[in-house]
Amino acid sequence: MRRALEGVRVLDLTRVLSGPFCTAILADMGAEVIKVEHPEGGDLSREPSVAVNGESYYFMSLNRGKKGITLNLKTPEGVRILKELAAGSDVLIENFRPSVMEKLGLSYADIRQVKPDIIYLSISGFGQNSPLANLPAFDIVAQAMGGLMSITGQAGSPPTRVGASLGDTSTALYAAFAVVTALYHRRIHGVGQFIDVAMVDSIFSLLEMSLFKYLGRGEVPGRIGSRHPTSYPYDVFRAADGYFVIATFDNPGFTRLCEAMGQPDLASREEFATDTLRGRHAEALKAVIEAWASAMTVDQVIAILERKRVPVSPIYNIDQIAESEHIKAREMLVEIEHPVAGKVRLPALPVKFAATPAVIASPPPALGQHSAEVLETILKYSPERIAALRKAGII
Amino acid sequence: MRRALEGVRVLDLTRVLSGPFCTAILADMGAEVIKVEHPEGGDLSREPSVAVNGESYYFMSLNRGKKGITLNLKTPEGVRILKELAAGSDVLIENFRPSVMEKLGLSYADIRQVKPDIIYLSISGFGQNSPLANLPAFDIVAQAMGGLMSITGQAGSPPTRVGASLGDTSTALYAAFAVVTALYHRRIHGVGQFIDVAMVDSIFSLLEMSLFKYLGRGEVPGRIGSRHPTSYPYDVFRAADGYFVIATFDNPGFTRLCEAMGQPDLASREEFATDTLRGRHAEALKAVIEAWASAMTVDQVIAILERKRVPVSPIYNIDQIAESEHIKAREMLVEIEHPVAGKVRLPALPVKFAATPAVIASPPPALGQHSAEVLETILKYSPERIAALRKAGII
Repeated sequence: MRRALEGVRVLDLTRVLSGPFCTAILADMGAEVIKVEHPEGGDLSREPSVAVNGESYYFMSLNRGKKGITLNLKTPEGVRILKELAAGSDVLIENFRPSVMEKLGLSYADIRQVKPDIIYLSISGFGQNSPLANLPAFDIVAQAMGGLMSITGQAGSPPTRVGASLGDTSTALYAAFAVVTALYHRRIHGVGQFIDVAMVDSIFSLLEMSLFKYLGRGEVPGRIGSRHPTSYPYDVFRAADGYFVIATFDNPGFTRLCEAMGQPDLASREEFATDTLRGRHAEALKAVIEAWASAMTVDQVIAILERKRVPVSPIYNIDQIAESEHIKAREMLVEIEHPVAGKVRLPALPVKFAATPAVIASPPPALGQHSAEVLETILKYSPERIAALRKAGII
Repeated sequence: MRRALEGVRVLDLTRVLSGPFCTAILADMGAEVIKVEHPEGGDLSREPSVAVNGESYYFMSLNRGKKGITLNLKTPEGVRILKELAAGSDVLIENFRPSVMEKLGLSYADIRQVKPDIIYLSISGFGQNSPLANLPAFDIVAQAMGGLMSITGQAGSPPTRVGASLGDTSTALYAAFAVVTALYHRRIHGVGQFIDVAMVDSIFSLLEMSLFKYLGRGEVPGRIGSRHPTSYPYDVFRAADGYFVIATFDNPGFTRLCEAMGQPDLASREEFATDTLRGRHAEALKAVIEAWASAMTVDQVIAILERKRVPVSPIYNIDQIAESEHIKAREMLVEIEHPVAGKVRLPALPVKFAATPAVIASPPPALGQHSAEVLETILKYSPERIAALRKAGII
């Protein structure tokens, strides 16, 4: 079956998370992604923090479906080869700190000279023109400065980082969107362009209601745990053996909840008469719900509430969601055969295209695995020349 | 200046957050988005929880740049008109519960009959083929079942919802990527397709390291606050007047931190000799850092650490990031003139395209604002016919 981005060549100079997450998505959709790594050690994420037969799970997941070449960009020869490859590519993506590519002689202006219609995307912490552009950007910094940590966590707790690297991954999603949008535009109008995406901006763009509260009425929202800012009960609740979630907004839903709890009178109490009032008396209502749930397991609570069509759900641990019937039905974990690690399961793209499905077409490359192939087939280098480059430590 | 998606017409049947966030991005990039709302009340998010002159800030931000028409899809005439519009559209996006569009006679199969190359994207909580497909899906449910809440929050705290509706917005980003990818593919091969994106899957796809830990070694990670699972100091710390973040991974960085704190000997203490050891003795190290910082303001701490090139950052509240020089330099807040609300600032797309910049081209539509215009110009309806439809409550 055909994939949507077949025929698109992406030169991928990215490392660790934001860039590789973006280019993995492009590879799943059929783009030929050529990952460029330093000959000594390559991408930092090859160092296994979680290893299978010594192979980094992180690297495997984020670099599946890509080709890998090595190139020492601190040598003039390495830079020259990179430019030759760029001349034959549609897209170049990098996530170095701003000014690094310029210093290497590989800025957009430089690449444009050899490939006028290149789509050149830079990912960075703060963007190319921020007063903060040169500060180091880690995920926790993007989450901290983007405002998200100030609104995540229990009331009274310190600001809390989201338990996954959203600063990187949300940026990667915007970047993947941007690349394809620019490809679409280039297909029609024949021109490439420079694209600049920043981690702090990406986090900032996701604040929604908390930002609207500030912009609309000058309010600075803080941390309120898991509850909805105004509606109730929309929160996490404790049962005997764990936690569960209820999400109701309306009176009929609340009435059904009260009936399910065997306390139909609750629904007619003055302080719980409307969603807004329930929001104001959230603590009292939470106490009532948890008193009821405390003698039951989460499964029991859910069975009772689902019968009454009260929006309720378990809170899955990582193993529970990974092994769920849902994830199975959605084919969200795909088994691949890795030459060293053996059979491993990788998370799939959560977009199900009927005509051009995403495919994890190959395991990630070993360091430099495709160096010779790429130089031979794309640049028509002779085996002798390739051997010389290898000997000189350039590839 | 040209925008990348000019000439693309999107028929937008979505409500509230996931769908509208996706189509707002497409509109910023130049697509003609025709938002279809029920004649009575329209999109739920028009109800102002944060209002400016009675206008919902939420609705304004999520629906800028779109046209708005009303159409009662529970009438045969409404369905017929929708199909006529679909026949002239490139993309149809909906976020009803699975089976709703089918019951309305507006499934992919139905629309395909009138527009064979339509790109038809469905957003839902669990996807079209999940055993859970018919459960109600709210953001908190997607965060709970997708695994993210189980790894977000302080150690010992209940599972914690991210303070923004990431279940919706991450799905919207995947959806925007999917639409443009399908447009690119259609441009080359002439075929449309059905696309299915789910909120739980989107959350699941972002778990990265926590999922790899489970898949790679069967470990089920829990909540560890803001700290890095292995490295230290990469965490939130308390100063006299608030919190700040340090993000170091390496020995040179740690040595500079110790020097900055005036405690150079710390760097040579056995239990802090490597990143891994520091991770193991995180509590002790956190106590040392907070003891040092407790007599200073956040600003003072940051000034001292930045001078020593220790990766450090403030944790911005919503007002601090919104009014920062960074957000200004990045033009991440754009002022528009709304006919009722007046001047309001809206968050911009965090992707800076040099050749085809995103533009917030117009305020959001009033309910039914473009009904007559769309029916006249696209479907060539006469004013009399439009008046009759309005009278009958169909538009």
